Amino acid sequence: MNIDGTPFRTIWPNDDEKSVSILDQTLFPHELTTATLSTVADAARAIEDMLVRGAPLIGATAAYGMALACIEDPSDEYIEAAASQLKSTRPTAINLRWAVNKVKKDLLSIDTGARAKAAWELAARICDEDVECNSRIGDFGLGLIEAIAKQKTDSSPVNILTHCNAGWLATVDYGTATAPIYKAFDKGIPVHVYVDETRPRNQGAHLTAWELGKHGVPHTLIVDNAGGHLMQHGQIDIVIVGSDRTTSHGDVCNKIGTYLKALAARDNGIPFYVTLPTSTIDFEIEDGLSEIPIEERSGTEVTMVSGITAAGKVEQVRITPENCVAANPAFDVTPNHLVTGLITEKGIVDASPEGVGAIKPTE
Amino acid sequence: MNIDGTPFRTIWPNDDEKSVSILDQTLFPHELTTATLSTVADAARAIEDMLVRGAPLIGATAAYGMALACIEDPSDEYIEAAASQLKSTRPTAINLRWAVNKVKKDLLSIDTGARAKAAWELAARICDEDVECNSRIGDFGLGLIEAIAKQKTDSSPVNILTHCNAGWLATVDYGTATAPIYKAFDKGIPVHVYVDETRPRNQGAHLTAWELGKHGVPHTLIVDNAGGHLMQHGQIDIVIVGSDRTTSHGDVCNKIGTYLKALAARDNGIPFYVTLPTSTIDFEIEDGLSEIPIEERSGTEVTMVSGITAAGKVEQVRITPENCVAANPAFDVTPNHLVTGLITEKGIVDASPEGVGAIKPTE
Repeated sequence: MNIDGTPFRTIWPNDDEKSVSILDQTLFPHELTTATLSTVADAARAIEDMLVRGAPLIGATAAYGMALACIEDPSDEYIEAAASQLKSTRPTAINLRWAVNKVKKDLLSIDTGARAKAAWELAARICDEDVECNSRIGDFGLGLIEAIAKQKTDSSPVNILTHCNAGWLATVDYGTATAPIYKAFDKGIPVHVYVDETRPRNQGAHLTAWELGKHGVPHTLIVDNAGGHLMQHGQIDIVIVGSDRTTSHGDVCNKIGTYLKALAARDNGIPFYVTLPTSTIDFEIEDGLSEIPIEERSGTEVTMVSGITAAGKVEQVRITPENCVAANPAFDVTPNHLVTGLITEKGIVDASPEGVGAIKPTE
Repeated sequence: MNIDGTPFRTIWPNDDEKSVSILDQTLFPHELTTATLSTVADAARAIEDMLVRGAPLIGATAAYGMALACIEDPSDEYIEAAASQLKSTRPTAINLRWAVNKVKKDLLSIDTGARAKAAWELAARICDEDVECNSRIGDFGLGLIEAIAKQKTDSSPVNILTHCNAGWLATVDYGTATAPIYKAFDKGIPVHVYVDETRPRNQGAHLTAWELGKHGVPHTLIVDNAGGHLMQHGQIDIVIVGSDRTTSHGDVCNKIGTYLKALAARDNGIPFYVTLPTSTIDFEIEDGLSEIPIEERSGTEVTMVSGITAAGKVEQVRITPENCVAANPAFDVTPNHLVTGLITEKGIVDASPEGVGAIKPTE
C-alpha cells in the first residue's frame, strides 16, 4: 500500500540482488525506518527481534533469508544450517516453517551453482503469491462493502470495525482484514474504519491506525470497550477481522477480544466477517473452544504500556500498582454460529463444516 | 477498608474539628498521599482537580466543604457563595448538587451561631449514610457469593469479574460493586477478583487493583478484551459491576464496555449483577438506549496513557501515530434483559419495571 503516496511492500529485494529491505516495525508508529538484510543472520535477527511480524511476512522474510544464505554459501551444509537458524527464531510460527522447508527442499534438489538464483526467484514468488492471495480476499470482500454502500440512502461512508492488525503490515501487501478496505477505498467507495486499539499490545493503535493513515483511509481509533456501544447506535455497518487459525467447522481463533465483538454484532444484527488465507485453516480440528490451546503471554504486556513521551522518547510506563499480577490470554475463539462468513482467496463461504469443506484442497 | 491492615475511609474529619483529610487520588496507584482541606476553597479544588472522584465521595466532600465554609463564616451570604462555588466544580455531578443543596437548606433554617456545629454533624451523617448504604448493598450481594461458594465442589475461590472502579475509592467506604466482595472476603469466603483494566482511563488498573490489593483481596488484572474468553472457559462465576444511572425499566448505564461483558455473561450462562444505591435510579426514564445521552470525552484519553517510568516518574505517553483521531464515548447502556438482578440497599430486585417499581420511594 502507499506511504504518503508512494507504493511500498513490507519487504522488497534490492537492485543489487544481494540484499533485501524491510520496514523496521519495532518503533512503529513513532519512527519509520527501513532495514537492510544482507545475510541469513540478518534475516533471523529481523524475525526474532520482531522488526517484521505477522505470519505471512515472517514467512516471506524467512524465504529471503534462505536466498541470502545461498548467496553466502550454496552448500548443502550451509543451507541446512540456515534453515535451522531461521526456524528457531519463532518456534511456533507455522508459516515460517512452511516457507523455510519449501525453499530448502527445492534448493537441495538442484546444482549448487544454480541455487542462489533459484532461491532469489522462489522468495520473490512466495511474496507475490501472498500479495495475490490477499488481493483476491480483498476483491471478494470488496463486494460486501459495495453492496452496503449501494444500500445507503444518506451520504455516510460504509463504517467498518476491525480488531488488531490483520493489515498490510502483517503481510507483504494488502493485509487480510484490511484488503477489502483498501480495495474499496482505492475504488472510490466512501469507507471509514473504526480501529480497536487492541489491548494489551495495542496493534490497532500502533499499526492499523498507522497503515490506514499512511494510505489515506479515513479512520477513528476507539478503545476495545467502545465497539458494542457504536453497534447499538447504528455506527457500524460491518465487522471485518482476521484469523490466526480456523477450524474445519468454521470456529475462528483470533486476537483476544474478537469474541466480544462477534457477540455484539449478533446482538445488533450486524454482519461479522472473518478474512483468512485458506492456508491458515486447520482441517484436523473441529471445535475451536476445546481443541485450540490459547497462548498465555507475559502479564507485563498488560501492566507496561509503550508510547512516546512529550520529549519524543519511546518509553514504557507501568499503569498498575507495583507487583500487580495480570493474566494475559492472547487469543480467543469465536464460535462459528457468530460468524456471518469466511472471506478467503477462494471465495466467501459459510463458517460451517459444509462451507469450510467446500474450500478444502484436494490432495 | 484497610490500607495494609489499617482501616481507612476516603474522607475523614480531623480531631481539630476544623479540617478534613482525604486520600489524594490524583497520583494513584503510584503515590499514596493524604491532603488536608481547611476551607471551602480547598474542598472545591479537591473536587475540581479530581483529588476525589466517584459520585458518593464527591457528595461527601462537598458536604464537608459546606461545613468548612460555616467555620470560616456562617453568614447567609457566605453559605450561598460556598454552595455556588462547590456546585460549579463538576456541573453534571448529581450527588454533588444534592449534597450541597441539602446542607445549605438545613443551615439557612437555623441560627448562624449554631451553623458550624450543625454542618459538621450533617456532613458526618452524609458520610455515615453512604457507608451504611454500601454496607447493606454488600450484605445483599454477599448472599449471592456465599451461595456460589457453597455449590463449589473443588477448592477454587468464587471468581468475580468487575469492570471499572465502583469501589471503596469512589465512595466513603465499601464501594458498591466491591461491597459484596469485601464482605465475603472479611467473612473468610475464598474470593478472587478479575479486574478489567477499563480503558481508556484505566480505573481498574489504577484504582480497583490498588484498593483490592491494599485490603488483601486476591485479584488478577486483565485487559477488557479477556473477560469473554475467561467466561467461555469457566473461569468466572459471577459478574458484579456498578451503575452510573439506572432507568425505571432496569436498563443500566455504566462505564463503556459493560455491555460487552453482559453479552458474554448471557452467552455463557453466568449471572450478571449490577450494584447501585437507589438514589442513582432515574425513575423519569424507561429506555436507556434512547433516553440516556452518552458523554463523549476527549480523544486524548484514548491516545495518551499515564503511568510510571522505570525512573519512577509519572508520565504520559502517546500510543498512537501523531494526530491520530480517537472517539471516546464514556458510557454504554446494558439493556435490562441482560441483567440478572439489581443489588440495592433495599434488596435485590429484577431489572424490570416491576422490580424497579418495587423499590421506588413513596413521596
